[in-house]
Amino acid sequence: MPDEFSRIARYLAPLAGEAGLGLKDDAAVLAPPPGRELVLTVDQMLEGVHFLSGEDPALIARKLLRRNLSDLAAMGAAPLGYLLTTALPVALPEDWLAGFAAGLRQDQEIFNIELLGGDSSSSLHGIALTATLLGTVAPGAALRRNGARAGDEIWVTGTIGDAVLGLQARRGQRKDPTGFFTQRSLLPAPRVGLELAGIVSAAIDVSDGLVQDLSHIVEESGLRAVIEAGLVPASPAAAALGEEVLQARLTGGDDYELILAVPPGRAEALKAACGDLPVTKIGAFEPGAGVCVLSGAGTEMAFKSLGWKHF
Amino acid sequence: MPDEFSRIARYLAPLAGEAGLGLKDDAAVLAPPPGRELVLTVDQMLEGVHFLSGEDPALIARKLLRRNLSDLAAMGAAPLGYLLTTALPVALPEDWLAGFAAGLRQDQEIFNIELLGGDSSSSLHGIALTATLLGTVAPGAALRRNGARAGDEIWVTGTIGDAVLGLQARRGQRKDPTGFFTQRSLLPAPRVGLELAGIVSAAIDVSDGLVQDLSHIVEESGLRAVIEAGLVPASPAAAALGEEVLQARLTGGDDYELILAVPPGRAEALKAACGDLPVTKIGAFEPGAGVCVLSGAGTEMAFKSLGWKHF
Repeated sequence: MPDEFSRIARYLAPLAGEAGLGLKDDAAVLAPPPGRELVLTVDQMLEGVHFLSGEDPALIARKLLRRNLSDLAAMGAAPLGYLLTTALPVALPEDWLAGFAAGLRQDQEIFNIELLGGDSSSSLHGIALTATLLGTVAPGAALRRNGARAGDEIWVTGTIGDAVLGLQARRGQRKDPTGFFTQRSLLPAPRVGLELAGIVSAAIDVSDGLVQDLSHIVEESGLRAVIEAGLVPASPAAAALGEEVLQARLTGGDDYELILAVPPGRAEALKAACGDLPVTKIGAFEPGAGVCVLSGAGTEMAFKSLGWKHF
Repeated sequence: MPDEFSRIARYLAPLAGEAGLGLKDDAAVLAPPPGRELVLTVDQMLEGVHFLSGEDPALIARKLLRRNLSDLAAMGAAPLGYLLTTALPVALPEDWLAGFAAGLRQDQEIFNIELLGGDSSSSLHGIALTATLLGTVAPGAALRRNGARAGDEIWVTGTIGDAVLGLQARRGQRKDPTGFFTQRSLLPAPRVGLELAGIVSAAIDVSDGLVQDLSHIVEESGLRAVIEAGLVPASPAAAALGEEVLQARLTGGDDYELILAVPPGRAEALKAACGDLPVTKIGAFEPGAGVCVLSGAGTEMAFKSLGWKHF
């Protein structure tokens, strides 16, 4: 591996936009887009915690960006750029960094973002990565978790529960002949670019698991959520696995779909805003507290865990 | 240790300002100060690389913020707020997090910044921390590394080389009866708040070592720097150690003082801007390339290493 400054010059500086000053200064300098509010989020990915050793570095890079892009999507924000930290073991081959940078470039182009700055370090134990994403939103238009009202419908984008099945496949616990689940786990599709302001009253992305993430809206909005498990949209591959994987699908994380609180009568506007992306109504908010998941028999389901927590 | 959400609520949410939304949303929402440019920087601190196991968590927190604040200072920016990531081993006692949060609070008050958001994770191997700092600067007023001109004088703030002597003391390689060196190593004083725009033509902070950091201005400005080792300001404690520690002082990192390029005739303006903080002229820029350090005998010094690099 070349030394720190050579690595930055070769692999990371070409990813920097104008505000990044070629990664040659102590910080980035950015003129904020006029008339917009800033939206800021950061997520980390650690070897052994968020990804497994030996995974494709390009996919790790893209998931790092996409997890953060999903947070911007959950706020209704348009992405602008990002800062990056890398902590890499000395023995890591240069190929790894080349693949990682290629993944960053690919997603920079897809999501129209640029590298603003960063920090690189050696690591004694495994790879540690963070990305801080910067986005913008019209003033007052950020989607919050606390905006849901009793009577609002609960909608989700896409399909729920593929990523946890992909994690099981990656661990050798499940067959995945087409690679669909694995792909959904390794390369989520953040739902950025939807014009949800004025349609949606609250939003969150499914990062830790549908039930747990929905519980955050419930807590912040002071409501009870009632959803029907049978309405939670499954991909054809997940649907084929039936009831056996339902608990896992409802509490597994990493889907990076959006949970949306939608006032009654706004379904058509929501569908229009989502275009080709399917959206599905799974329940409604009512006065009270907690998340109630109804089984097909109409009884409340119990869960061993509501979702992923870091101890 | 309480679970992830309890930890955030107990120790980190009280540190969040209005833009942090109580750390209860997917991202922070911040109205950028009108008529200012944004300055963004990120640094990481890893156990075993940037700090030693068993160190005071409050001091680790404060150094994490201060290293980043120093980057803002080097750009001439006023700090606004920060995002934080923590990756903590499961076995870490809750006391550690309490001390860490107390350190954050102390420096938030000193530097008038607030917590905007963050991400917390478990860690398999040691503590890993990052802070992303956000500051602002008047449009076009950011201090760059590429602005120095031939004939500009080279000035430094404070004293140079105490921190590396402190690192040696912390490793048991040097006596430090008053604790002065150790203090300078553990708790640097970032030089934020100086009104240097219009006085200084280029700036960088001393994070990796004076000679190496000066070489970055030299490279970006396309110049040669000639400094006199005997002019590089030493604290009384470092001066008492004499020539024996000169190489270490000139190439040791972590001082977080500023190296400033100052056009001729601006010395009085510089001193006025720095107020009680001493500033010292150590050399000048001239056409050419590289950094030349002259010994007391007027010969060019050779260095084993110019400063700290991550492999």
